[in-house]
Parts: sequence; C-alpha cells; structure tokens
Amino acid sequence: MFGVPGDFTLQLNHMLDQQPGLFVGTSDEQGAGFAADAYARLRGIGVVLVTWGVGGLKLVNSTAQAWAESVPVVVIAGSPGLAEREGDPLLHHKVKDFDTQMRVMQDVTEYAGHLDDPGTAPRIIAEAFATARRESRPVYLEVPRDVVGLPCGPLPEVPDPPDAEPDPEVLAACLDDVQRELAGAGHPAIISGVLVARLGLQAQLDALARATGYPVAETLLGKSSVGSDDPWFEGVYAGAISSDQQVRDLIDGADRVLVLGAYISDLNTGLFTTDIDRADTIISHQKITYVGVRGYDGVGVTHLVRGLVDRLGAPVPDRQPVPRERPAFTPAVGTPLGATALFQALRSRLGPGHTIIAEAGDSLFGSADLRPEESGFLATAYYASLGYAVPAALGAGLARPDRRPVVIVGDGAFQMTGLELGGMARVGVNPVVVVINNDGYATERPMMEGAFNDIPRMRYAMFPEALGSGTGVRVDTEDAFVAALDDALADTSQLRLVEAVTPRDDISPQLRQLTTELGKRVKKG
Amino acid sequence: MFGVPGDFTLQLNHMLDQQPGLFVGTSDEQGAGFAADAYARLRGIGVVLVTWGVGGLKLVNSTAQAWAESVPVVVIAGSPGLAEREGDPLLHHKVKDFDTQMRVMQDVTEYAGHLDDPGTAPRIIAEAFATARRESRPVYLEVPRDVVGLPCGPLPEVPDPPDAEPDPEVLAACLDDVQRELAGAGHPAIISGVLVARLGLQAQLDALARATGYPVAETLLGKSSVGSDDPWFEGVYAGAISSDQQVRDLIDGADRVLVLGAYISDLNTGLFTTDIDRADTIISHQKITYVGVRGYDGVGVTHLVRGLVDRLGAPVPDRQPVPRERPAFTPAVGTPLGATALFQALRSRLGPGHTIIAEAGDSLFGSADLRPEESGFLATAYYASLGYAVPAALGAGLARPDRRPVVIVGDGAFQMTGLELGGMARVGVNPVVVVINNDGYATERPMMEGAFNDIPRMRYAMFPEALGSGTGVRVDTEDAFVAALDDALADTSQLRLVEAVTPRDDISPQLRQLTTELGKRVKKG
Repeated sequence: MFGVPGDFTLQLNHMLDQQPGLFVGTSDEQGAGFAADAYARLRGIGVVLVTWGVGGLKLVNSTAQAWAESVPVVVIAGSPGLAEREGDPLLHHKVKDFDTQMRVMQDVTEYAGHLDDPGTAPRIIAEAFATARRESRPVYLEVPRDVVGLPCGPLPEVPDPPDAEPDPEVLAACLDDVQRELAGAGHPAIISGVLVARLGLQAQLDALARATGYPVAETLLGKSSVGSDDPWFEGVYAGAISSDQQVRDLIDGADRVLVLGAYISDLNTGLFTTDIDRADTIISHQKITYVGVRGYDGVGVTHLVRGLVDRLGAPVPDRQPVPRERPAFTPAVGTPLGATALFQALRSRLGPGHTIIAEAGDSLFGSADLRPEESGFLATAYYASLGYAVPAALGAGLARPDRRPVVIVGDGAFQMTGLELGGMARVGVNPVVVVINNDGYATERPMMEGAFNDIPRMRYAMFPEALGSGTGVRVDTEDAFVAALDDALADTSQLRLVEAVTPRDDISPQLRQLTTELGKRVKKG
Repeated sequence: MFGVPGDFTLQLNHMLDQQPGLFVGTSDEQGAGFAADAYARLRGIGVVLVTWGVGGLKLVNSTAQAWAESVPVVVIAGSPGLAEREGDPLLHHKVKDFDTQMRVMQDVTEYAGHLDDPGTAPRIIAEAFATARRESRPVYLEVPRDVVGLPCGPLPEVPDPPDAEPDPEVLAACLDDVQRELAGAGHPAIISGVLVARLGLQAQLDALARATGYPVAETLLGKSSVGSDDPWFEGVYAGAISSDQQVRDLIDGADRVLVLGAYISDLNTGLFTTDIDRADTIISHQKITYVGVRGYDGVGVTHLVRGLVDRLGAPVPDRQPVPRERPAFTPAVGTPLGATALFQALRSRLGPGHTIIAEAGDSLFGSADLRPEESGFLATAYYASLGYAVPAALGAGLARPDRRPVVIVGDGAFQMTGLELGGMARVGVNPVVVVINNDGYATERPMMEGAFNDIPRMRYAMFPEALGSGTGVRVDTEDAFVAALDDALADTSQLRLVEAVTPRDDISPQLRQLTTELGKRVKKG
C-alpha cells in the first residue's frame, strides 16, 4: 500500500502501522499512484492510500492510466468525518462540495464506493476488490475518518472472479470457427497482448503455442506477456514501426493471425499501419471474440485460450524459463554514445533477474527489442503518462523482490518524478536507473521543433548524493556506458544511477519512424 | 502561460513560440498548474497549457485548489484532432472516451468549453475568460489539434466583469442596516478576507478604514489583502490559534465585526473557535451580505464596500505604501535554530520587495505574523495542497518581477515539487528558498505519530548544484541562519537555497495550538 498521509488518513495509517512495511510512503501522491500501478501489474492488485482532495485529486492521472491500461489499482482516500460535515462547513481540502472527489473518481474508475455505513461497508469493500480483479481496472473507496475502527460484519463472499461463463453454444460455435480458420491456414501466427499478462494466461498460451507450433509476437503494451526465453517467442510487432523486420514479415505475411488480448491502439499498431486483413484475423478481447467479421459475445480471451487448449488436449506446462542467449554487444572505445548503441548494450545485459521499466518516449521505443523475462517489462505503452518509470521501480521492487528494477528514463520524464528515488532504499529497493540525457523532449523534436522542447540542464549523476541515497555516474562514450552499466548491475547494495549523455538529435530508429508518422499528422493539423 | 508540451499541443506551442517568453515550461504539469495559480493571484488571470489526458488529468488537483480558493486560472488542453476521432480509435492518452477529461474538468471549474467549431470558438473563448474574471474561478478550454490555425471571427464583447448590480432597494436597505449597526458599536473592527485581494478592493478598503478609523485584521487566507504597512493594519486573526494576542483580543472584544470577503473555513477560524456572535457580525460574501441573521441577495462585498465608501464620502486614496519598521531579531550565536527563532528572523527581514510564498503546514502557520507588503504573501490557506510553494515562485516571479519570491517550505512538501527550481533561472526568476528541514511531516506528528510521518533524509542544500542552478547552504544555528538568509537576500543574481535544520519536534506555537485541536478530532475519530 503506497501513499502520502494526511490528517484525514491518520487513523488508517495508525492501524496500518501495526504491520510495519505494509504502508510505504512516497514523496508525492503521483509517485504513490504509479508505484501501486506497477505493483498491481506484477502481483494482481495494488493499493494506494491518500488523503481527500489534495491527495485524491493528485491521483486522477495515475488512476486514469490504470483504467486505460487495465490495471487493478485500489485507490483509498481518507475523508472528513461524517459528523464534521454537518452544516456543510468549509473544511480544508474541500472543493465544490463533499462529493466532488467521488464524482471525479467515478469518471476514471470501474467502481466507486463510499464507506459511510458500517452496515454496508463490508459488501462495498468486497465488491470493490472483486471488481478490480474481475475487470482488471482501478476502483475507488472513500473512508470518512470517523468510521475507521467502527465494528462491522465480516467481508461477504463476492465470487472472485465471478467471470460470467459464456453461453456454451456461443463458445462452441466460436471455438469451431476458430479451429476451422486455423486449420485452413498455411502461415498462422499469434499476437499476444497485455491481457494475457493481466488475466494470468501465460501458461495457457504456452500450452497453445507448444501444441500448435505457432510463432508468437507481442504488442508493445503486451511486451513480456510472453517471456523472451520461451522458444516460440519472436519479438514485438508494431506494424510499420516494428524494429525487427523478421517479426514484421512474420505477422504481415501470416494468412491467419490470432490476436489475444491486445489493444488495437495507435502506439501498438505503428499508428494503424499493420498489414493484416480483418478477414484473416481472430481477435479476442476481454469479453468478446471476433472471427473475421463475426462476433461471439461473452467469449473472452480467457475462454478462447482455455477452450482451444482443452480441445487440443495440450498439457499446460509447469513453467521454468531457460534463459536464451542475449545478443552480444561490444562497445567501441571512446566512441560517443548514441541511442542505438545504448539500447544494444542494454539488450546484451538485461533480462533474467530484472524488472525492466521503460518510460514512455524513446526509452520505450528503443526498448522494443530488449529481452526481458516473462512479466519482466513494464511500460505505459498506451496511455503513455510521463513520470511513470521512476516511481514504478518502487512498486516493482516490492512486488518482485527476487528481481532488480532497471529503469530506462529520459531527462524530461526524470524531472517529473526523479525525487521518488530518495525513499526506495528505506524499503530495500535499489534500482539501476539509466537516465538518457539527450537535452530535452527528444520525442517531440522530430514532430515540431521549438524552444518548448528545451528543458533545464540538470546534473542527473549528482541526484543520488542530493537525495542521500546511492551513487551516480555520468558517461558519454560507448565503453564508459558499458562499464558503468556493468558496475551498476553488479552492485545490488544501493541505488545506482547512470546518466547516459547522448546527442540531442540522436533517437532510436523506432522512434524516428514513429515521430515521422506523427509529425505528418501534427503538420497537417 | 505555463505548461508542458505534448504532441497534442505542438501546433499551439509552435504558434506561441512566435512570441518568445510567452510559454514557460515546467518540469511537471503539477508545477505548471501551481505557477499559473500564483500568477493569477497576483495579476488577475493565469493560463496553463497542457496536453490531453496525461497532462490535463495531472492538473485536477491544482485546478480544484484554484476553484476552492477563488483563483482565475484558465486551463487549456490540446486534444486529438476531430478527424482522428472517427471510429472511436484507441489513441494514446485516451481514458474511457474522448470526453473523460471534459467531464472531470467540469467538476473542478466554473466553465468548460470545447473549441470544436470555428464558428462558436470566439464566443466560447470570450465567455471562458470573462467567467474566470467575473467569478474569480478556474475555467477550462479543450482545443482539438486540427482546429488550431483555422480562421474564425473576432472575439465578441463579453462584458468583463458584467457584475450584475444588485437591486437598488436591496442595496439601500443593506447599507442602511449596516450603517445603523456600526453607528451603535463601541468597538467595531474589520476582518479582511481573500476576496478583497481577488476583487481588487484594497483601495476601497483603505478609504473605508481611513474614514471610519476601524482597525483591520486579516484572515490567514486573506493575508496581505491589506498591506502590513497600512497604518490601521493589526495582524492575522484566526480564532483561538491567533498568534498575536492583541489581534485576538481586538476581534473577540469587538461588539461589531465587519467581515469582508472572508472564507469561514476551519483553518481561517482556528477550527471554528472564533468568539464572535452572529448577531454582532456583518459578513459580506461574493454575492450576498448578511447583517446578523438578515440576508441581502445580490449585495456582494464589492457593492457593500463601495456603497459605504460612497455614503461616507471617503476619498479613495492613491496608494503609496510607507514601509513600517519590522520587529528586530538578534540571533543567539551558536544556539540551535528552532521554529520560533526562524520565523522571528524571517519577520525581521522580509517585507517590501518580496513576494513571500508559504507552503501549507508549519511554513504557513509560523508565517502568520510576517509583515508582507500588500499582495506580497501567497499561501493556500484553505485548500492546502502540499507542493505549491516552490512552483508558485515561478509564477510569482514572472507576475511581479519587481519583487523577489521568497519561499518558505517544509522538507515534506519540498520533496513533491522541488525539482521545479531547476528551470526558473532560464526566465530570470531567482527566488530565495528556505527549506525547513525538521525531518518529516511535522504538522502530523502532534496529531498522530507513526513511521508514516518519516520521510527520506535528503541533502536539500545540494539541490541547486544537482539542478544546475543557484547555490545552497545548510545551517542549524540561529546566527548561521540569519547570516545565510542575509547573504541569500543580498544576492539577487541567482537561486539561493537555505536548508534550515530545526529539531524534529520543534514546531511553531500556532501550529502546536492547531494540531492539538486537530489531534483531538483525529483521536476521537
């Protein structure tokens, strides 16, 4: 549970204090929201606790992102006591009325409940958590401070998840049609999307790939839904901006594509440049599946994958990843560091034992070909809120203490939430942070250049010293970067920050392709 | 205009670039929101420009604060082009649908308009700005990127402010009753609230005070609505937590109190501990006035003050402040710095030539007795969002370049938005920042102590070096603090940060009174 205490949460914080380590404070509420999001992506649920108004309303963006990217975050706000509200006084942190925050949160969550009555509270709490898990979306609970500690009944059983099973006839028809389509295919392939990870379908997908022999690509948002070490894993497919030509040829050349739990979003599809005929596509969302133009209501990706595995009689494996070799990278001594070399170096060294967190922007696009282990890659590849990666390291480190968080973040995003690094060592999280210092908003420069893309030039390598935690180093050549990276990865005892200086206009090939496309739209207006 | 660019704002940013300095970038959108708020408090309007979703939804809290504290901020968000929305695609930064942000912003603004048609755009823009000024509240405009640059008609005349005049009969009755009440008073007094500053009534109030000889106190939120150098100015009144006993006696002992444009909020009234009988109170809000229990609809504080000044035939002065002596402070050499000495030192040195910005918490309560010049004090003394003071310095410095921003901020709040200091020198803003390092959330410790009040121990004095801007120093004795403060105030060429270390449990007397009161409520739940 991540958060920032306020006077309306103090009773809750006091109760949580009985179990040391349960509540983890962050510098700003935004950081708490992102940390809880990362925790939820890795552990199936994440909780954030903040005060009313000044706390909760700072969380609207992170909660919106959780909704947009299907992340089950539970937002809890401590609010004024019911008794204090009599006569509608002007209490601190109040906006228009006592319900402003509730209304706002309803717009960005899947469920919002007010714990204003001990009689109804257990059911509301149970429903909130069940909804978060079932829908894989954020929910909101508001807790007046004078109800904290009041006795209430036990939590009722809310089926979790009560995953409405589809109509057996619809499911059977869907599976029949899918199997017939696939049987007629000469070059079938699978695209694995983010819901495979969110709904825990990795082992089922593994069974399906083993039984069919179909190659599997991922979307950018779904990256690490399949582990890079799975033998059938091919890489990330993103239409015209796929960086791996082999993957692009594989999918664009397939005559049937089984798209599992993927968002058909602009960033996932290289701005809708995929070359896949609708007639050749079987696409399965959370609650509906389409075979070509035909829709099968209620048949979600869970039902489809399980149904196919059952029909194929495929054994669902007990999964032990066997690390594949990462492509080697040999730095050129004294050569100025560029984006291409930087990501090649990262690819050669990151994978097993790491949770890689790539900030939106070039940190993400350049990371498309990294080889994380399963669920070892976090990025906001759809909603794309800057400032995510640093605080996400806190959530990731606590969610998976067996893996070290490795953050890849640009200078612009680092300036939003970099201070969150200061508190991580307190809870035993010691990330490696690679700050790509390319002197401004590099993602925007190719679209539209102007003074607005310039940002203050900070000394990122000094931050660990100023924050009182860890060690930083600044490098600007290939060999120095590799040496600093190796040194940082070897030292797990503390935060290690590597400021990697790259030329201002040197972006990854993937980003160049994307921003050229985006720039056309900006200019045509 | 403060903001962070995104691909949906680039056309707007490109146009703004034609006038260098018009757009000022910040590290995070939160900082832009707070900077625009400070600018608006000092100049009557402030604008923030951000991208859709990831930008706008980060501004919900700062916009809510502007609503709560009557600040006319115009929030502009660049959004996806209308043509891009066809078929409801999953574009990056989208939450539930294309209207999520509009709905959310409607909850925290006074007016929200969508510039989706060149035919209606001029009227919507004019109404938005007129509403912001007239109501002294934030408004919201959403601009699809493909309408930027389309020709449209001229801005229509929207009366600004079209301040509905009250019914003359109601106004006359109100003024009659007010004058009769005041005539019968032996010890009348005035409390000046925040709307006196927002609605520009300072000169009228000056005339009223001169003509009547009534002493004037301020609320905490209204601090500097009257200049400390005005001869009738007495200090801040806040019920039982008024730090100046003389002011408290003056107001609690008055037999008629004229309360002008003040919020009757918990923090303004020392948690509703004022000792003023309703029957003895004349209270004038933005659109209604009460004389005792009788209400006069449509008679706002503007009408009341102007009406009284007219009736008294009082000349409205051409105002030239004559600085009063600030109370002296002589530091004890080698004595550990405490909160009391710290604020005494600040009081002895701050005033003319400064815009003092006090963060919520002890930075604010301890600052109650500072002697700013008129409109020379900014604080969020009602909504009380932490993280305000540092970015507000940017807005204040640009709004009033003749005055130097002096920030008083606690360590907890500094960790939220301290990085915003990095960019201020670029636009010629060189604040003095006093970081009160008392090792955690000192405002909460007296209410409820626990590990949740501990924060990472950062080296605040190192921040200027890490941010690449200015100079920092750390002090922990009275004499060293005074020397560092004098040195910082004398050097206007750069950012100067003074890390003032005070004992963990040493808070100001005002805060101790307040938190003891709040603590009772927390504990009784």
